[in-house]
Amino acid sequence: MAADSGVNITWHEHKVTSDKRKELMGHKGVVLWFTGLSGSGKSTIANTVDHKLHEAGTHTYVLDGDNVRFGLNKDKKSLVEKAGFSEAAGARFGVGFSAEDRMENIRRIGEVAKLFSDAGIVTLTAFISPYRLDRDNVRKILAPGEFIEVYVNASLATCEKRDPKGLYKKARAGEIKGFTGIDDPYEAPEKAELVLDSDSKGIDELADEVIAYLKQHGYLSA
Amino acid sequence: MAADSGVNITWHEHKVTSDKRKELMGHKGVVLWFTGLSGSGKSTIANTVDHKLHEAGTHTYVLDGDNVRFGLNKDKKSLVEKAGFSEAAGARFGVGFSAEDRMENIRRIGEVAKLFSDAGIVTLTAFISPYRLDRDNVRKILAPGEFIEVYVNASLATCEKRDPKGLYKKARAGEIKGFTGIDDPYEAPEKAELVLDSDSKGIDELADEVIAYLKQHGYLSA
Repeated sequence: MAADSGVNITWHEHKVTSDKRKELMGHKGVVLWFTGLSGSGKSTIANTVDHKLHEAGTHTYVLDGDNVRFGLNKDKKSLVEKAGFSEAAGARFGVGFSAEDRMENIRRIGEVAKLFSDAGIVTLTAFISPYRLDRDNVRKILAPGEFIEVYVNASLATCEKRDPKGLYKKARAGEIKGFTGIDDPYEAPEKAELVLDSDSKGIDELADEVIAYLKQHGYLSA
Repeated sequence: MAADSGVNITWHEHKVTSDKRKELMGHKGVVLWFTGLSGSGKSTIANTVDHKLHEAGTHTYVLDGDNVRFGLNKDKKSLVEKAGFSEAAGARFGVGFSAEDRMENIRRIGEVAKLFSDAGIVTLTAFISPYRLDRDNVRKILAPGEFIEVYVNASLATCEKRDPKGLYKKARAGEIKGFTGIDDPYEAPEKAELVLDSDSKGIDELADEVIAYLKQHGYLSA
């Protein structure tokens, strides 16, 4: 019956430190926060960086709309229909597209990115994240140097011409309201660690710029 | 100017699959979901398992009150004071202790655990998670075999005697309302993969039972 004393004694002895996790991973964690207009190439560049780092043996993870919007940040409808929430709880916790909803959306993603980085994973996030305040709030919860803001800079004209999901067309037709760049603002970063010129450069070249940054600043061995 | 075409072409080619991430980690991901009364030893056992697996070279991560309650699942006060939310948004998204709040608390943790497991990490969660429905909802979002419910079974008498944080004393005095086991129910698992006898066995022995389970069921090489 050593359980009683064990509860207190073993706790501190046995806690794995963040440094120990990173040692086993072979590198520190960091958050590469890709931000830019819809169609700027955020997701594609992030996934290409992810692929190249993975091939080189780096432990990485991508947080994007695919795995976050339909999971952690479900909207009201999904909470009620898929997670069994009451209408009231669904309305309360569900994440939509108002300014406050976007703030909560980005806040939760930032907190999850922080956990992944703490685990020693090179974490890439790809969300429009249009508001400067929301991005700066994520920067604040991370350690100095742990947040790398990557501004994927493409003109609205470029993005609208690409329009891979047909969203700009819908926004111009008034079928989508509050669309970033059309009738909702995109606040470009003023102090991004990296600015990628997505108007004139290709995906591979931009992905290599990100990897070069990581090597130059000691996040990865050169 | 290959950016336009590149946006569509490189996406699918470059996506790192979940299997590839796990291959690099050297093992699959899995969620070890510890549930039990406050003071049952959940956190201590989870951290001991974590420590032993880490020492053996397994990539692990623990989600518990320390890194979730003050981050992802902040309460209203913290959202307003620390994250700059309006009172209204804080009240809406903040997580408290009502049944619906607990449901959302566990739901978010389940979604994050799913992401960690997808990354190939052996993920340990240590929360009272008193309601069967909430735990079963987490089981449902994971693949068969990816959710291991670990019931840390200790009698209320044992937990109340340990009372490491003095919470039972406060609950008995009426200073804390809705405390699990006192004036809020704990719904014991009916189909837990593992039941740990925390009344009569010590921490190390119980941690070894968990590791033996993982080896027996092929989650780790024996």
